[in-house]
Amino acid sequence: MSKLSDRYDPGPQLAQCGTINLGTKNLEKSLFFFRDTLGMEEVERDGNVSYLRCYQELGHHSLVLTEQEENIVNSYSFRVKRPQDVELFYEELKRQEIEVLEIPAGSETGRGTAIRFLLPGGDHPLELYYDIEKPLAPEHMRSRLPSNSSKRRGLGVRRIDHFNLQTSPATINQAEQWARDTLGFKRREFAYLPDRPDTLLASWMSVTPQVHDLAIVANGMDKTAQLHHVAFNAQDFSDVLTAADVLRDLDVSYGVGPGKHGIGQAMYLYIFDPGSDHRVEIYAGGYMIFDPDWEAIEWKKENFPDGLTWYGDPIDVKPGSRGRDTTGSAGLHR
Amino acid sequence: MSKLSDRYDPGPQLAQCGTINLGTKNLEKSLFFFRDTLGMEEVERDGNVSYLRCYQELGHHSLVLTEQEENIVNSYSFRVKRPQDVELFYEELKRQEIEVLEIPAGSETGRGTAIRFLLPGGDHPLELYYDIEKPLAPEHMRSRLPSNSSKRRGLGVRRIDHFNLQTSPATINQAEQWARDTLGFKRREFAYLPDRPDTLLASWMSVTPQVHDLAIVANGMDKTAQLHHVAFNAQDFSDVLTAADVLRDLDVSYGVGPGKHGIGQAMYLYIFDPGSDHRVEIYAGGYMIFDPDWEAIEWKKENFPDGLTWYGDPIDVKPGSRGRDTTGSAGLHR
Amino acid sequence: MSKLSDRYDPGPQLAQCGTINLGTKNLEKSLFFFRDTLGMEEVERDGNVSYLRCYQELGHHSLVLTEQEENIVNSYSFRVKRPQDVELFYEELKRQEIEVLEIPAGSETGRGTAIRFLLPGGDHPLELYYDIEKPLAPEHMRSRLPSNSSKRRGLGVRRIDHFNLQTSPATINQAEQWARDTLGFKRREFAYLPDRPDTLLASWMSVTPQVHDLAIVANGMDKTAQLHHVAFNAQDFSDVLTAADVLRDLDVSYGVGPGKHGIGQAMYLYIFDPGSDHRVEIYAGGYMIFDPDWEAIEWKKENFPDGLTWYGDPIDVKPGSRGRDTTGSAGLHR
Amino acid sequence: MSKLSDRYDPGPQLAQCGTINLGTKNLEKSLFFFRDTLGMEEVERDGNVSYLRCYQELGHHSLVLTEQEENIVNSYSFRVKRPQDVELFYEELKRQEIEVLEIPAGSETGRGTAIRFLLPGGDHPLELYYDIEKPLAPEHMRSRLPSNSSKRRGLGVRRIDHFNLQTSPATINQAEQWARDTLGFKRREFAYLPDRPDTLLASWMSVTPQVHDLAIVANGMDKTAQLHHVAFNAQDFSDVLTAADVLRDLDVSYGVGPGKHGIGQAMYLYIFDPGSDHRVEIYAGGYMIFDPDWEAIEWKKENFPDGLTWYGDPIDVKPGSRGRDTTGSAGLHR
Repeated sequence: MSKLSDRYDPGPQLAQCGTINLGTKNLEKSLFFFRDTLGMEEVERDGNVSYLRCYQELGHHSLVLTEQEENIVNSYSFRVKRPQDVELFYEELKRQEIEVLEIPAGSETGRGTAIRFLLPGGDHPLELYYDIEKPLAPEHMRSRLPSNSSKRRGLGVRRIDHFNLQTSPATINQAEQWARDTLGFKRREFAYLPDRPDTLLASWMSVTPQVHDLAIVANGMDKTAQLHHVAFNAQDFSDVLTAADVLRDLDVSYGVGPGKHGIGQAMYLYIFDPGSDHRVEIYAGGYMIFDPDWEAIEWKKENFPDGLTWYGDPIDVKPGSRGRDTTGSAGLHR
Repeated sequence: MSKLSDRYDPGPQLAQCGTINLGTKNLEKSLFFFRDTLGMEEVERDGNVSYLRCYQELGHHSLVLTEQEENIVNSYSFRVKRPQDVELFYEELKRQEIEVLEIPAGSETGRGTAIRFLLPGGDHPLELYYDIEKPLAPEHMRSRLPSNSSKRRGLGVRRIDHFNLQTSPATINQAEQWARDTLGFKRREFAYLPDRPDTLLASWMSVTPQVHDLAIVANGMDKTAQLHHVAFNAQDFSDVLTAADVLRDLDVSYGVGPGKHGIGQAMYLYIFDPGSDHRVEIYAGGYMIFDPDWEAIEWKKENFPDGLTWYGDPIDVKPGSRGRDTTGSAGLHR
Repeated sequence: MSKLSDRYDPGPQLAQCGTINLGTKNLEKSLFFFRDTLGMEEVERDGNVSYLRCYQELGHHSLVLTEQEENIVNSYSFRVKRPQDVELFYEELKRQEIEVLEIPAGSETGRGTAIRFLLPGGDHPLELYYDIEKPLAPEHMRSRLPSNSSKRRGLGVRRIDHFNLQTSPATINQAEQWARDTLGFKRREFAYLPDRPDTLLASWMSVTPQVHDLAIVANGMDKTAQLHHVAFNAQDFSDVLTAADVLRDLDVSYGVGPGKHGIGQAMYLYIFDPGSDHRVEIYAGGYMIFDPDWEAIEWKKENFPDGLTWYGDPIDVKPGSRGRDTTGSAGLHR
Repeated sequence: MSKLSDRYDPGPQLAQCGTINLGTKNLEKSLFFFRDTLGMEEVERDGNVSYLRCYQELGHHSLVLTEQEENIVNSYSFRVKRPQDVELFYEELKRQEIEVLEIPAGSETGRGTAIRFLLPGGDHPLELYYDIEKPLAPEHMRSRLPSNSSKRRGLGVRRIDHFNLQTSPATINQAEQWARDTLGFKRREFAYLPDRPDTLLASWMSVTPQVHDLAIVANGMDKTAQLHHVAFNAQDFSDVLTAADVLRDLDVSYGVGPGKHGIGQAMYLYIFDPGSDHRVEIYAGGYMIFDPDWEAIEWKKENFPDGLTWYGDPIDVKPGSRGRDTTGSAGLHR
């Protein structure tokens, strides 16, 4: 008997938030943070480029640290569902007359052919790929659990979770609509700017049952292409508390948290990589959306503070003490 | 611009583990357990039938308790992805010459038209539906979080998670293969019987990124159509510990747990509904599978104990004290 | 062989933070909070007076709710170590020419003879007692664990933890010194007012290895005898998170938290009893002081914010939103 | 005004469980365990002797690892409450005609004069001391929290908690009685041997509000002077789960746990130091005894399994798989 699904063609789709390539001015400080403190495995070092993954990731890497002169994000990469989807998305981008590059296999070690383009309305450098090697960890790091690539270490981040991108209010609607129409993201929760009711303040979107694999947020500054944060997932709320406890005592710039978002119902902690100054979220929990008829939740101005912070260290929109600004870290793109 | 996905037809698919209809000899005792202790909302009572949902479920119900003379499972229901999928699955079943009934809308209050058939190789009564009402909770129970249908209460179970079905070793391979080929389940982890290397001991399968929405397990008794357990999801490992603490002190039959499965990496606690004697799992955590090329993990005999119990109260295959048997609860189907 | 300790006389000492008698304008609302939400047992009701205890308290009560016209605190009671210590403290107070009343047994149901006086420098009504009945809970509430008086329920507060009293900067030094000299409290952590370096801002003191059974804090308002809060203890940080989650969704006035104090290293959540408007802390964790030569920790102005909030929802000294003021609740005493 | 307590003499008393000196055949393996995995600070190394403390301990050490040919316990040390108590206990031991040695200051680096004797009825080598240095950690390890000597690391054990000693049924009553009469321990919970109702199976005792700083357990083997385990305290139940998760994946011999004791209500995890093969408990939570009139809880045979394991991985009395024996580790004393 053949599979029922073989009789249908779902078309090209994204599978997951895949990898991020962060520029860092100080690779050793970034490795102190991601590898030695958060507990990621350095899978490979290639000169000034380091490839890392979390203990529950089987693929070659989810984070690339590239030592370079500017703390920019070199790429946000999503993995597609099928090998042919890279090509199918390439054709679709061509059809839409969007400039798209083919990135040869191995440009990021362990990764196959990718395509690269700028998010319309955002100018963030996106890449799509399918093939990625699944190397075994060195024997002393290998886990006895076959679903883990290595033993749990450090603060126990287990996988990349999502990207939060900032763009200008002038183009955020375009960026979000394009991500939904072409990349297949579903809008899960959203808010409009209080003073511009047709312009998105933020949209949380996913191609998976997570509330978001991608968020797009207005930066209020008419700049495009900022990273607000990249999130790494931990098992439990208590892991975020432990991370907060440990990170408060280290010489790194501490942001906001821990607290629980009303939006997504997950626990958050924002911290800055001391090497690159990029904002990183330690993230746990949240609800899953399995309902196929999910209606996106709109957060009105009066409830939005609850959406940002249901309980815990409040996220303010005001710039200020302890890194509470939402204007992005160093993440401007070329 | 139209959506890219509109140009493709993914065919009929399941969306999620939807609802279970449990027969119970003692509705009041079952309500003490599911509503008053676990904290579910009784959305509606219709004579001897009670409809319940968890605080993070927007649909009308995920659990139906039907007071009747036998503690059997009346149905296991999956929700499909699109309205037309109910009809498309109906046609496929007809094509395969499987007996299938149409269940009119409202047979379960709040639910639309469903189809009903017996799992080939398992004889478990499965139902597929799409439409389900999304009633607001009574005002005093309503949550300020729009993604929650009601306030968190009791032991805080938040959604139905998965079904674990038992069937005979003689037919388990057929049942599992059919679930994969026709219903679209993907095999995530599995084991063969130690003494019958071509016959499944168990297969954990999902249509979502969860490790399993459905498990099929050999019961070693040449009986078909048993429920091993139905699982309800809690946020954190600590919620399972709290549930264990509270449930140990109540007059209900306690099973096994808490402990952490190696398979799926989730925390478990097994407990018996005092009304129906069905086994229920309180379940939290676990890993997500976003990799589109996931290779199912095989558990060999020597590692299988780690798969059942990575740490905590060990799951034995031997029958015995404190409900440690795996021979199923009262769950034989007609 | 006789006990070595029988050859010595340690003198009168306090054993523990015992009971608090809260005036409430609305007993039913207070019972909704303490009994139905926090999970305390109502041991006895005597007209407009309700006696409650937590599930890990064997004594008759740790909380008395008295319905009356003013939301004041009627008494803060400490239990002494030996039966004769009530009388010995009485004599000491007489010796110091402090007005002291004998409160007959049964004035609080279940409690023996007590003495009552106003804290010198604070005017808070303190009571000392030794005898207290240890009634069994009703059979359906009784725990199978003999160290628990009843089954865990609700948000799972397990015992009274400490009192935090406010008094005027003009007299705080006197109050704190008297508590140390006469009642035997040890100063564990403290801070001086930023602009008055000889005047205490706060002192955390204990007669047990806890960091504090009693805190005395300057209220900045030249008022004496305010309650800042009474704290109830929960097992784990995760219990405080769960309490925050549930309480945010109830119609009660939410204060500050959760967060972790640097002072004492415990998790906090401040909430207001909707019946009496008194501030209550849900409190978990913290460090123990077993060192007999503990040197009290002084918090200087520059580190004091870390002392109040190591991580989480920050405690501000500024009055303001979400109950973040430290000016006390309705707790003025007659 | 003088302190009231200055007018009385409480006599010599113990303050706390202080330090343990473990012989280990393999110091490097023991350091991998205690320092690199559990996260203790190695304060000083003196040839084949290593001094360690936890992050919440200000004293010089709570653990001494001495590389030697036998995996025995060299001493169990308690700290006394006042400087003069060392001498006062010395006199009392002389009075009782118990052989007692004076151990000069510095015999354990950082510690003052101690006295040493064998527990009557147990033959365990006990030491009592008062003076201990409080060195600052190296600057890069120092915590910003003044109540912590160093930053939290590894699995986050924060202080030594208690000793569990085994002795022969023939002498256990004598040992326990002596500890109560002379050292001032209070019996908190206990059980008699099922077949010898006048002979203790176990007694949990404390000089602090903890349920036990010291347990004495019958070993069923007519041997004296065994260590069952030494316990180190972690903040929360979740820390024990994390420790279990990590330790299951390391090449160390795993014992029993995690689970929650009914006795003491704390979470346990037993693991063996790979260097010395001594059993170590990771311990969190539990209830506090502030009641001065606490009546020791007796566990009868029928409830004793609940006392050992309220939930979680059950502690068996049967020897067997995964280190579930209670016959002690290598801990026979000279």
